[in-house]
Amino acid sequence: MSLIVSEANQNSCSSFMKEWKIEQKVNAKDLYQNFEVFFFDCDGVLWRGDTVINGAIEVINKLINDNKKVYFITNNSTKSRDTLLGKFHKLGFTCVKTENIICTSYAIAKYFHSKEEYKSRQKKIYVIGEKGICDELDALDLDWLGSYKDNDKKVVIHDEGEIQIDNNIGAVVVAIDFSINYYKIQYAQLCINSIDAEFIVSNKDPLANFTSNQQWPGTGSIVASIEQVSFKKPKVLGKPNLFMIEPVLKNLNIDLSKVVMIGDRLDTDIYFAQNCKIKSILVSTGVTDANVFLNHNNLNIKPDYFMTSILEFL
Amino acid sequence: MSLIVSEANQNSCSSFMKEWKIEQKVNAKDLYQNFEVFFFDCDGVLWRGDTVINGAIEVINKLINDNKKVYFITNNSTKSRDTLLGKFHKLGFTCVKTENIICTSYAIAKYFHSKEEYKSRQKKIYVIGEKGICDELDALDLDWLGSYKDNDKKVVIHDEGEIQIDNNIGAVVVAIDFSINYYKIQYAQLCINSIDAEFIVSNKDPLANFTSNQQWPGTGSIVASIEQVSFKKPKVLGKPNLFMIEPVLKNLNIDLSKVVMIGDRLDTDIYFAQNCKIKSILVSTGVTDANVFLNHNNLNIKPDYFMTSILEFL
Repeated sequence: MSLIVSEANQNSCSSFMKEWKIEQKVNAKDLYQNFEVFFFDCDGVLWRGDTVINGAIEVINKLINDNKKVYFITNNSTKSRDTLLGKFHKLGFTCVKTENIICTSYAIAKYFHSKEEYKSRQKKIYVIGEKGICDELDALDLDWLGSYKDNDKKVVIHDEGEIQIDNNIGAVVVAIDFSINYYKIQYAQLCINSIDAEFIVSNKDPLANFTSNQQWPGTGSIVASIEQVSFKKPKVLGKPNLFMIEPVLKNLNIDLSKVVMIGDRLDTDIYFAQNCKIKSILVSTGVTDANVFLNHNNLNIKPDYFMTSILEFL
Repeated sequence: MSLIVSEANQNSCSSFMKEWKIEQKVNAKDLYQNFEVFFFDCDGVLWRGDTVINGAIEVINKLINDNKKVYFITNNSTKSRDTLLGKFHKLGFTCVKTENIICTSYAIAKYFHSKEEYKSRQKKIYVIGEKGICDELDALDLDWLGSYKDNDKKVVIHDEGEIQIDNNIGAVVVAIDFSINYYKIQYAQLCINSIDAEFIVSNKDPLANFTSNQQWPGTGSIVASIEQVSFKKPKVLGKPNLFMIEPVLKNLNIDLSKVVMIGDRLDTDIYFAQNCKIKSILVSTGVTDANVFLNHNNLNIKPDYFMTSILEFL
C-alpha cells in the first residue's frame, strides 16, 4: 500500500497511515503516467452537489487531452445519462461526452431491455426513484409505474384499507427517491411478497453528497426499508457490483494493471475496484474521512493508494 | 413442546408439527386452568385492523370474569393508552381498563420522563411516528418536534440545500409513521450523526396487521432506514425487550411459571416470552403462518404451544 500526502489534510492522512501501517510514499504524477484508463466516481470526487472540487476540471481536461481513457462511473440514479452530461458541461467539464458516462439509471434500463418480457412490454417495472430512471426506461420503451407519479399518494389506515397492485409487474426497482412515502414502500412490499417481483436496486450507499453543505440519506436508506419488509436481498446493479462496467471492460480489452478507480467510498468505489481486479485510489473529498473510516470499516476494504484530492494529479 | 390443534388450520399445524417434531397434544382448557397471568399481543391475536378475531371478546371477558390477570402488551405506537382503550371498548372488549394496556407510545413517554434532562425540558425529542406518541409525551409535559408537524415537509435538492436541526435535541424516537418522508429521515440522521442524539425505537416488527385485508410495512421498515444512515443500533423499548413489562412483573410478584404470553410473532412476542422466562403460545391468526415461519425462522425461537386462534380457550 502506497500513500500520497498533500498538506491540505495531514490529520486525515496520518490516521490512515497509522491504521494501514503505511511507510512508503508515492508521487501522484507517477500514478498519472502508469495508468491508461481512469474510472472516476463523481459525487465527492469531482463535485459535491453543484460545487466543483478544486482542480477537478483541470485534471479531467488534462487526462482527456493526454489521450487517457476516462469513464465516470456513478451510482447516481437521479439523472439520465443525457441530463448528467448536461451537468458535466454546465459545471465546466466540457470535454466529457455521453459515452464517458456510466450511471445506474442507464444501467437499470439496459438490464430490463436485455430481458424479453420487459422489452415486449409484457411485464412492467415498479419504480421507487427519481425521474432519471423513468427517462432511461422511456428511452428504451419499457413500461413502468410509480416514481414521481406516486409522490402525492397518501395512506390513510382504515379497516378495509388496501392497496391494489398491477399483477403484470415483474420487478421492483429501488433507488434514491426524495419523495419516498409509505404508499411506495407498501406497493413495493406487495409486489415482492405477493407476486414475487424481482427486487433490483441501484446501489446501497448509506449516505450521499447531494448538496455541498451536508450529507444526505443515500439509496441504501430506502433499500434497507424494502429489504426489511420483503425478507429478500436485492440484485445490486451499481457499484460495488460489476454489471455496469462489464461491457466497457470487454470493449477496452486492456491489461487491467493499466486501469485505476478513483473514488471516495470504501464500500462502493474501492470495493468495486477490488471486484474488477484493478487498482484503486481513495480520496478524502467525499464521504470517507479518516474518522468515519476508522470507526466503521468492518469490510476489510483497503485502497491501493490514498489522495486527499484528485488535484494532486496536477 | 406441546400442541393444540383446531380443525380450522390443519395444514398450518401440520407444517409446524413436522418442523418441530411434535407428537404430544395438549388441551387448551388445561392451559387456561394452569396459568394465572395472561399477556396478550393485540394485532393479529385479538383483531386485525378494526376486525375482531372470532371469539376474542368472549375469551377476554371470560378471563377477566374468572379473575385471571390480563395485560395487553402491544408494540402499537400509533395510539396513546387512552385512545387504545377507546378502541378496546368500541370493538366490544368492554371489561378492559387503562391499567391492562401496555403500549410503546406510553413506554416511550415513561422512558424520557425518567430522565431529568427531558423532564426539565432542557432536552427535546425528535419524533418519527404517529400522534399517539406525541399525545403521551404531551401528557408528561415533554418537549418534542417532528411527527405530524413534519408531514408536509418536502426536500428539494439544490446546491446550497441543507436542513438545520435544533441543537437541543437529545434523542430521536422512531416508530411507524404513515407519513414518513425524506425530510424526516434526514432530520433524524443529522441529529444522530452530528449531535450524537440517542436513538430510541418502539420496536422492529417488519410487517404489521394495520388493516384486516393485507399486511403493511411495520416500524421495522422505518427503523431500518435510520439504522442504515446512522450506523447505529437503536435501543428498543418494545417487545421483544423487557422495558415495558418490568414494572408489571415487579408489581405482580408472581411465580413466572403461572404467566403466559400469547402472540402471533416469533421475533417479538415469542422471543419476548423467552426473554421474560415465561411460557408462550403462538397463534396463527396474525403475521406468522407456517410458510413464513418455515422459510424465515433464522432466530431459533420456538413457542411452547401453538394454537390456531385464542378461540380454542373456550
